[in-house]
Amino acid sequence: MKRILIALASLAMASGALCAQELTNFAFWGQKPVVSPEIQNDSVTFRLKADYATVVKLSGSWMPNPWGGTIDMTRGENNVWEVTIPLPEPEIYTYNFIADGVSVNDPQNVMVQRDGSRYLSMLLVDGERTENYKSAEQRGTISHPWYDSKILGINRRLTVYTPYGYEANPKAKYPVLYLLHGAGGDEEAWSSMGRTAQILDNLIAKGLAKPMIVVMPNGNPNQQAAQTFGLPTTEMDWRNPDNRNNYVRSLVEEIVPFIEKNYRTVAKKSHRAIAGLSMGGGHTIAASGMYPEAFDYICPLSMGAQRTPELDAQLQGIKKAGYKLYWLACGNTDFLFENANELDAALTANGLEHTYFVSEGGHVWANWRLYLNTFAPLLFK
Amino acid sequence: MKRILIALASLAMASGALCAQELTNFAFWGQKPVVSPEIQNDSVTFRLKADYATVVKLSGSWMPNPWGGTIDMTRGENNVWEVTIPLPEPEIYTYNFIADGVSVNDPQNVMVQRDGSRYLSMLLVDGERTENYKSAEQRGTISHPWYDSKILGINRRLTVYTPYGYEANPKAKYPVLYLLHGAGGDEEAWSSMGRTAQILDNLIAKGLAKPMIVVMPNGNPNQQAAQTFGLPTTEMDWRNPDNRNNYVRSLVEEIVPFIEKNYRTVAKKSHRAIAGLSMGGGHTIAASGMYPEAFDYICPLSMGAQRTPELDAQLQGIKKAGYKLYWLACGNTDFLFENANELDAALTANGLEHTYFVSEGGHVWANWRLYLNTFAPLLFK
Repeated sequence: MKRILIALASLAMASGALCAQELTNFAFWGQKPVVSPEIQNDSVTFRLKADYATVVKLSGSWMPNPWGGTIDMTRGENNVWEVTIPLPEPEIYTYNFIADGVSVNDPQNVMVQRDGSRYLSMLLVDGERTENYKSAEQRGTISHPWYDSKILGINRRLTVYTPYGYEANPKAKYPVLYLLHGAGGDEEAWSSMGRTAQILDNLIAKGLAKPMIVVMPNGNPNQQAAQTFGLPTTEMDWRNPDNRNNYVRSLVEEIVPFIEKNYRTVAKKSHRAIAGLSMGGGHTIAASGMYPEAFDYICPLSMGAQRTPELDAQLQGIKKAGYKLYWLACGNTDFLFENANELDAALTANGLEHTYFVSEGGHVWANWRLYLNTFAPLLFK
Repeated sequence: MKRILIALASLAMASGALCAQELTNFAFWGQKPVVSPEIQNDSVTFRLKADYATVVKLSGSWMPNPWGGTIDMTRGENNVWEVTIPLPEPEIYTYNFIADGVSVNDPQNVMVQRDGSRYLSMLLVDGERTENYKSAEQRGTISHPWYDSKILGINRRLTVYTPYGYEANPKAKYPVLYLLHGAGGDEEAWSSMGRTAQILDNLIAKGLAKPMIVVMPNGNPNQQAAQTFGLPTTEMDWRNPDNRNNYVRSLVEEIVPFIEKNYRTVAKKSHRAIAGLSMGGGHTIAASGMYPEAFDYICPLSMGAQRTPELDAQLQGIKKAGYKLYWLACGNTDFLFENANELDAALTANGLEHTYFVSEGGHVWANWRLYLNTFAPLLFK
C-alpha cells in the first residue's frame, strides 16, 4: 500500500494533484467502467454496481405511479445490476435505484435534481419537447442576492436570472417576471427542476421571448433560504392565510422594490409579470388580487380558486385596473384541475378576458416547464 | 386509495397544494420520524431506515482513512439502523452509509456537498474552528456569469462572490481575489466545500477582512461548466502543460478583464490577489510567474514546485515586479508536503520574503477552509 501511495504521489507531482474521486474511478484501477444511464437509439440502460445486494429495482418519474412503480434489475458480471427499458418520451425525468429496500441515486450520473429535501438522479431525453431545456449557446447569469424583509423579520435569499447581454449593455433596462414555486420547493426549485435559465436562454436566443429578468423568491414565509443552507426557520406556519398574505406583501412591497433598485428594470406595471405553480399559483392569485396596480401579466399554474365574494371583488379590481394577459394553466389529471376550472369559470363570470391552457398530465414539473416555455413568449409584447 | 386521494385533494385545496415530499414524510403517516444526524452533547447518532439490508455501515471523513474506514451500524426498531459515535472535533465533514455494499447518502439530511462527481451528506460540528463556516448575519451574493474564452474556444461559467453592501453602495469599488480549485473540482468547489461565502461574510462582518470580490473560475480548460450542467467537454487533456498554460492565460487575459469590466473593481495590481489549492496552487504559481505585473498577493495552497531554472527565473520576475504578500500553505501529512517544502526553499533561495504556513493534516478541505480563513484577512492591507 505504501508503494502505491508513493507512486501516486510521484504521478501527482508530475502532472498536478489527484483527487479522491480519481482514486475511486474504475478506469483508473483497470476495471471496466460502469456506464449509467446509457441511451442507445430507442432504449436506455441503467446500471448499478452492488456486490452484496439481493434485490435491486429501478424507480423513475416516467412510470405511471412514481411513488410505487418499480422495475426489477438483473445481476450481471462483476455484480453490476442492469435493466434496459424503452426510451421514455422526450422529457426530463428523475429516477433512483432501490437496493435491498434502500433508495440510492445513480453514482455514475452527476446530473442531479433536488425536489425539496430529496435528491434524485436526472435523465434528459432529447426531442422537440425538451429542445429548450438544454443549454443554449448564449447564457444568462443566475445570482443569489439576499434581501431584508421587515414584514417577515428575516433576511431572505433570492434567485435572479439576468439575460445574456445584461452585463455587456450597461444602459439597457429590462422587464421582470416574478416566478413562484410550490409547497415543498424553495428559491432554487424553478432554476433546478424548472430549467428557467435554459428555457429563457433558448427563447431569447431564438427571438421568441423578450430579454427579461426572472426573479425566483423563496415562498415559504418562515424560511431565510433553501433548507440546504442550514439556516434556522421561524415558527411561522405557512398554511396560515395571514402568513401567506405576509409573504405576498413582502413580495410586492419589499422584493419588487429591492429588484427595481438593484437591477436595471423598467419599474412599471407594463413591465412586470407574475407567475407561480401550485402554492405559488395561489400567491400569484393573491398578489394580483391584493395589488391590482402591480402586474400586467398574471399566470397562475396548476392552481385555481374557489369562487367567493372576495375572489369576485379581487377579479373586478384587476379588471378595473386593466391588464395585458391573464394566462391560467392546469393539467387535465391534476388533483387541482377542478379548482382551476373553478377559477376559469370565475374569470369568465367576472368578464375577464383570459387564456385557459389545459395540458395532459398532472401536478408535475413536466407541466411547469411546458407552461414556462409556453407563456414566456407572451410576456411584455 | 381513491378515498385517500380525494381526501388529500380536499385538504390541498383548503390549505395550499401538497407535494410528493410531504406524502413520503413519516410524520404525515403517523410514523415516528427518523432523525439523522442527531448531535447530543459529545456524541452524534446516525440513522438509516433499511428494511431489507443485512449489513449497514457508516463511513465519514473524520475517520483516519476515509477511503476504507467504516463503522458497523445496528438494526433497531422498525428496521432503523443506528450508530452513536463520539462527536468529532469541530469541522465540516462528509459521510455516507453503506447498505449491503451500496453507498447511500443520509436521506434525512438535506445538507449535501458535491466533491467532483460525488454527492455526500454533510455534518458541521460547532466550535471555534467552524465559527466562520456558518452563515453570517450579513451575506454577500453568489452569482454565476459566463465569459467567452477565445483562448480556449468555449463559453465558460464562473462563480463570483460580491460582498454584503455591493448592491447598496453603487459607487464603491472593490479589490478582487481570484480563488482556484483543485483537480476533480470545478467553479462550485470553493463555494460549496470551501464555504467561501460564509467565511468572507463572517470575516468582513467582524472587520477582519476587507470587503472584496472573490472570483472562482473553472480550472479545467476542457470544461464549459461543472459536469452537473451536462455541457460537452472538449478533447483537451488538462494534464498537458500547454493546456494548463492556456487556462492560466485565459484567467489573466480574459477572466480578469471580464471581471474588471462587469464588476466595480479597482483594476490595479495592488487590488488583485490570487490563491489556489492543489492544481489551483499550480495555476497560482504559474499565473504569478507568467504575469508578474498582475497580482500583489500570491497564495499557493497544498502545492509546491520543483526547483528548476524556469521557476527561479519566474520568482526573480516576481521579486523584481514587487509584491505585497507571498503566502504558501501546506499540511504536514499532505502527499505534496515535500513539494511545498521545495517551493519554500526556492522562495528563500531567491530572496523572496514569504510566509510558509504549515498546518496539521493532509490534502483535505478542512485545511483549505482554514487557509482561506487565515489568509483572507491579510489581503489588500
